[in-house]
Amino acid sequence: MQTWRRTFATSVARLGHSSTPNSRPALLRCAQILQASKKEEPCSLEDQEIKVNGLIRSVRKQKRFAFAEISDGSTVEPLQAILKPAQAADLSTGAAVEISGVWKACPPGKEQTHELQTTEVTVVGASDPETFPIQKKYQSTDFLRQIPHLRIRTPFQSLLARFRSECLFQLGNVFRSLPNGGFTQVQPPIITSSDCEGAGETFTLLARGAVTSSSTETDHFFRSPKYLTVSSQLHLEAYAAELGNVWTLTPVFRAEKSDTPRHLSEFYMLEAEANFLYDLDSLTGLVEHMLRDLTRRLYDSPVGQELLSMKRAGESGQESGADQSGLDLRQRWTALMDGPKWHRITYTQAIEKLQQAVAEKGASFKHPPTWDGGLQTEHEKYIVEVLHQGSPVFVTDYPKAIKPFYMAPSQVGENDSTPGETVACFDLLLPEVSEVAGGSLREHRLPNIIQNMREYGLIKERASANPDAPPSEPLYPHLSPTEDLGHLQWYADLRRWGSAPHGGFGLGFDRFLGYLSGVSSVRDIVSFPRYFGRADC
Amino acid sequence: MQTWRRTFATSVARLGHSSTPNSRPALLRCAQILQASKKEEPCSLEDQEIKVNGLIRSVRKQKRFAFAEISDGSTVEPLQAILKPAQAADLSTGAAVEISGVWKACPPGKEQTHELQTTEVTVVGASDPETFPIQKKYQSTDFLRQIPHLRIRTPFQSLLARFRSECLFQLGNVFRSLPNGGFTQVQPPIITSSDCEGAGETFTLLARGAVTSSSTETDHFFRSPKYLTVSSQLHLEAYAAELGNVWTLTPVFRAEKSDTPRHLSEFYMLEAEANFLYDLDSLTGLVEHMLRDLTRRLYDSPVGQELLSMKRAGESGQESGADQSGLDLRQRWTALMDGPKWHRITYTQAIEKLQQAVAEKGASFKHPPTWDGGLQTEHEKYIVEVLHQGSPVFVTDYPKAIKPFYMAPSQVGENDSTPGETVACFDLLLPEVSEVAGGSLREHRLPNIIQNMREYGLIKERASANPDAPPSEPLYPHLSPTEDLGHLQWYADLRRWGSAPHGGFGLGFDRFLGYLSGVSSVRDIVSFPRYFGRADC
Repeated sequence: MQTWRRTFATSVARLGHSSTPNSRPALLRCAQILQASKKEEPCSLEDQEIKVNGLIRSVRKQKRFAFAEISDGSTVEPLQAILKPAQAADLSTGAAVEISGVWKACPPGKEQTHELQTTEVTVVGASDPETFPIQKKYQSTDFLRQIPHLRIRTPFQSLLARFRSECLFQLGNVFRSLPNGGFTQVQPPIITSSDCEGAGETFTLLARGAVTSSSTETDHFFRSPKYLTVSSQLHLEAYAAELGNVWTLTPVFRAEKSDTPRHLSEFYMLEAEANFLYDLDSLTGLVEHMLRDLTRRLYDSPVGQELLSMKRAGESGQESGADQSGLDLRQRWTALMDGPKWHRITYTQAIEKLQQAVAEKGASFKHPPTWDGGLQTEHEKYIVEVLHQGSPVFVTDYPKAIKPFYMAPSQVGENDSTPGETVACFDLLLPEVSEVAGGSLREHRLPNIIQNMREYGLIKERASANPDAPPSEPLYPHLSPTEDLGHLQWYADLRRWGSAPHGGFGLGFDRFLGYLSGVSSVRDIVSFPRYFGRADC
Repeated sequence: MQTWRRTFATSVARLGHSSTPNSRPALLRCAQILQASKKEEPCSLEDQEIKVNGLIRSVRKQKRFAFAEISDGSTVEPLQAILKPAQAADLSTGAAVEISGVWKACPPGKEQTHELQTTEVTVVGASDPETFPIQKKYQSTDFLRQIPHLRIRTPFQSLLARFRSECLFQLGNVFRSLPNGGFTQVQPPIITSSDCEGAGETFTLLARGAVTSSSTETDHFFRSPKYLTVSSQLHLEAYAAELGNVWTLTPVFRAEKSDTPRHLSEFYMLEAEANFLYDLDSLTGLVEHMLRDLTRRLYDSPVGQELLSMKRAGESGQESGADQSGLDLRQRWTALMDGPKWHRITYTQAIEKLQQAVAEKGASFKHPPTWDGGLQTEHEKYIVEVLHQGSPVFVTDYPKAIKPFYMAPSQVGENDSTPGETVACFDLLLPEVSEVAGGSLREHRLPNIIQNMREYGLIKERASANPDAPPSEPLYPHLSPTEDLGHLQWYADLRRWGSAPHGGFGLGFDRFLGYLSGVSSVRDIVSFPRYFGRADC
């Protein structure tokens, strides 16, 4: 019965090509070796035979010895190997090698504590150093963006990939550890009928081959036009009605032609929806807790510490991809984790303070702040960086007229504007990246959501030419017989049977990763970024 | 400094509307209450005041008492409440309620051990039981598929959602616990230039509004045609070259017009790629280990046990969504976890055995098995169900001619066909679902991958009319000056600098979940399924 266990042990060990778990030299990763060598006590690997599979980051050939830096993507720090000139003859930057030798302590004064005295090295994938685009010296982010498939081989991008992986895992822990059984992770659809935000900047799908022919409705693979999702919120509400509290991390798509470091056409959105949720404070409290808890878990992880300790461009000659030289990331994280409760300010108060800043403090904006005009990025930056000294801030209760149809009205006492004019929503602003998350209570009452849809022009006229159209009255008492909910009927349906007060939020996952990493452009935080005019590789 | 902690505790507790963590009655989930009541020792909640937020699954009104079943999506089993007739007056199936009372032991002989003696019940979302489409009696899968937004409220679909959530979390543990630091989880792009499988059945993207106008190349948002990914493999290879071992779980898309219970147009694919991987046995060993480990972790989880214990349609009157009545799921899981090493058989052997079965055992197939013809589903079913008595089986080393260009040739000694005619690949077959995973070693040598691309017609003629075209020779010595790698140039690039032997696999995540759940159609395992002609909600 246990045959498979032995088999798997062998097979899985062979992943790293050491034929059995007990074979010598032991195949290890650079992170394991370097970590073991950093402890105060004597290194357990000292004088042991070890083996590493990795890429040559640099090689320096001298008369009597050659020195190579090996990296296997497990840590930013390279492993130092010392070789005889003959062993190093075929080595060049970028080459993939299997290298084994004895892990020797270095004499004091050397930069590293240990080095690998090479016994054997095999080049399994050669590299032409003359053409290899990745170099040890600083390379501009613009240049590296043109070769995303190789950019991943820079130490900083490699670290970012491991950091993202840790975030993905810790997110699962964050949501599981919430009270009362935690949140359920769901996978809502990517192909959808509706444009959640109503902005119309969506990608349309066609089954391949249909592009150049004339398209009619009947050509559509799904019988009617379908789009790539811009948000999973509507579907999360369907899940939350049954499951209570749900979350998802899914790709979303926006066909925006904006050319900013804050926007991508494809990005990951972290969304959550909570049923039986009655007030906006509970929702902002959830967001605050979630992000603090995530940051704390990342802080406690080795890769988090590696990110915080890494030398940045400008501090060393090494390429980093981060353009935040001198930034104190550790302070940024500490403020998130342990700082005082994040500020809440209503939209109306924010506008008043912005106007006051213009009138009394000489602040100047390209767009003068007005209550009807919403917040531009310049306003958001002023709110978070000047008015709140760089602390995270929730701006709540925006005008109904500039927000989507599904938001619930502001609650009495939490709205300092005319009743009915604002909705129970928030945007979370962080320094530098500005808006990183947004959410709201949802209108959960059937007559009210239908009235909202009517006001927002989302209800169509039922084609009276269609005599087969079923009468709408039995199912939808709040509709006139000529009104048609179209592709949003299922969403209204959710309010028809057992709809409790609920709310949720969406967080730009890549933007938040950028904030934690000190990377100011999302184009450098996503390995293969897609934006207007660019989808290389 | 700790202000936020108190705030968050309050806010997060308010998620369930209990105003402070210490308030009475305590808000609990049905799973917590029912679990506490099942233990041998006296139930810690007995005679305590508790509160639940949930949906009414059924209500039965009698003269002196009323009985309601409450469900909050945390467990399949409903919580029983007993009410006075006046309290139950407004209750109806489907309604969302807050209900509180005292948790009382029932006299022996009752089906449940405890019931809630209701003190207070509030309907926060009414439901019209006359029109509510979800009923307690059996409802056909066909009917339920038409209302996916409400189907989630059936006990079985609700359980499947929690089961998926557990799988997502445990996958993270499975990959982290692999030797040598585990696998890094990455998020490759969804919008891509290439069709990995070469099948051409992809969805094309258009920025909205461009559908009805005449389309030319310049209309494209990304300057050239882009598609929804059919597999992340090519990008995983870029990650693996740096990071070593990587995995992802991402949505993939196929515009196949097939109408089968095994295919969706949008589904989740679990893919992994391992660098410095030299042989197919290591790869199949990894797949086997990964699926055994995942199954074991699910078996050890409460939701896994709930799935294994749940009564199926046909066993009780209750709807389940599963059409596998009488199926012994526990046996299926045990075979996966603890059974002997999974079989390996080469494609050539499989074809021989199929032909032998036709000749000697009277097996009959719609498509007679031939070496050139590949395996049809009927062949796969025979291989796994008859030839291997329902045990999982890896079929390896398929003909090169029917597999994609990137696969490496079969290894000497592992190929019983003419050398060069087969490739080092596998399909994993399971009973009922047939192919659930496939993978291969990749051709990692630059001249060979270019030769493969040439043979597969993937290299274009360089437009000689373009005098600005850079000469191809310096970067690609293996290309003729008139050859152009087009959108696959970056993929060939990966072989140019430090390309080690590597390989990976893709697993149909929804299909595997269906196998574990005993659900034979992927349309019932995905909450909002998309397939030819259908993308409701």
